[in-house]
Amino acid sequence: MVSEGHPYSPRDLHLPGYVPCSLSQSNILSVFAFFTFLLVSLTWIFSGRLPKKTKTDRLLMCWWAFTGLTHLIVEGYFVFAPEFYKDKTGFYLAEVWKEYSKGDSRYAGRDAGIVSVEGLTAVFGGPASLLAVYAIATGKSYSHILQFAISLSQLYGVGVYYITALLEGDNFAASKLYYYAYYIGANASWIVIPLIIAIRSWKYTCAAFKGQDQTKKHKVR
Amino acid sequence: MVSEGHPYSPRDLHLPGYVPCSLSQSNILSVFAFFTFLLVSLTWIFSGRLPKKTKTDRLLMCWWAFTGLTHLIVEGYFVFAPEFYKDKTGFYLAEVWKEYSKGDSRYAGRDAGIVSVEGLTAVFGGPASLLAVYAIATGKSYSHILQFAISLSQLYGVGVYYITALLEGDNFAASKLYYYAYYIGANASWIVIPLIIAIRSWKYTCAAFKGQDQTKKHKVR
Repeated sequence: MVSEGHPYSPRDLHLPGYVPCSLSQSNILSVFAFFTFLLVSLTWIFSGRLPKKTKTDRLLMCWWAFTGLTHLIVEGYFVFAPEFYKDKTGFYLAEVWKEYSKGDSRYAGRDAGIVSVEGLTAVFGGPASLLAVYAIATGKSYSHILQFAISLSQLYGVGVYYITALLEGDNFAASKLYYYAYYIGANASWIVIPLIIAIRSWKYTCAAFKGQDQTKKHKVR
Repeated sequence: MVSEGHPYSPRDLHLPGYVPCSLSQSNILSVFAFFTFLLVSLTWIFSGRLPKKTKTDRLLMCWWAFTGLTHLIVEGYFVFAPEFYKDKTGFYLAEVWKEYSKGDSRYAGRDAGIVSVEGLTAVFGGPASLLAVYAIATGKSYSHILQFAISLSQLYGVGVYYITALLEGDNFAASKLYYYAYYIGANASWIVIPLIIAIRSWKYTCAAFKGQDQTKKHKVR
C-alpha cells in the first residue's frame, strides 16, 4: 500500500516530509468519542436546568455544541495547518487528519475545494453553531433562521465535497473500508441532521408567517 | 496572448480542439443586456397587475426572474456542456462561456470546484429562484425563508468560487481588464444583492417570530 512513503490514495500523491500516524486508529477514535460524550453530557445536563426547554430543544443544543466545536477546533486546525501531515509531535489534531486522509487524501493533498469549504465551515459555521446553542437557550427570535442558515450551509458544503470528488475520479480513499467508514460514514451525520433541522426550521418559519398573517386579518376585521 | 491556440490564462492550459469566439464581445454582451431588459420589463409590468404588491416586492420578483433564468439557462448550459469551447456553430451560450473564460479560464478548463458550484446553482438555485417569483406573487408563507435559502446559497457559492481561485494562484484572467470586468464585475451583483436580500429576510423572519411570541403572551393573559 505504501508509495511515496504514505498510505494514501492515489499512490502518486506527492507529500514530501510525510510523518506516519503515531496514534492508533482506536486511540484517535476513542479520544474523539470521549470528548463528544463529555460535551454532549454536559450540554444535556446544563440545558435541563433551563426553564421551558423541550427535549428537542435540548437535543438540538447538544448537536450545535458538538458540531460547533468540531467546526472550530478540528476543522479550524486543518484550515490553518497546511503541513499537518509533517507533524512529528503526535499532536492529536494532526493525527486526526492524518487518519481521516486515509478516507479522503484531498485533505493531506490540500485540495483547494476542500480548504475552501472547510475554511467557510470553520470561520462562519463554528461560531454560528455556538451562537445557535445560546439562541435556543435564551429563546431568541432568530433561533430558527440561524439554525436554518447553518444547516443549509452544511448541506451545501457536503454537496461541493462529494460532487468535486466524483468529478475528480473518486479515488481518494486508501481502501473500501476507509471509503465507507470515513468518507461516507463520518460525513453522514452532516447530511441527515442538517436536513432534518433545515426542514424543521423551515416549517416553524412558515408557521410564524402564517400566524402573523392571521393576526393582521383579525386586526383588519 | 495566444498559446495552445487559445486566449486564456494560464497559457499552458490544455484545451485541444478549441474554437475561437465567432461573436464579438459587444455582440455577446448586448444580446445578454437585451434579454435581461426584456425579462425585467415584462416581470415589472406583470407584477404591477398583482394586488397589494409593493415596489420592493416587484423589484424582488424582477431579480428572482433574472437570476433564476440565468442559473437555469446560462449556467445550466455550462454544467451540461463540458466541451463548449469546441463549439463551431457560434451557438450563443457557448460563446458566452468562451468569452467569460477570458476572465476565469477555470470554466474552459472544467475545474471541479467551478462545476460543483455551478451544478448546485443551476439544478437547485434556478428552479428555486423561479419559485421565489411565484411565492412573492402569491404571498406564500415560505416566501422569506426561500429567498433567504437561495441568497445564502449564492453567497456560499461565490465564497467557494473566490477562495478556490485565491488558493490556486488567482491567475485565471487573460488580462487585468478581464479580471475586473468579468471575474469581479460580473459576479458583484451576486454578492451585493443576495447579501441585502438575506439580511432583509432574516429581519422579517425575526419579526414574524417576535409577533408570534407576543400573540402567545396575549393569549396567556
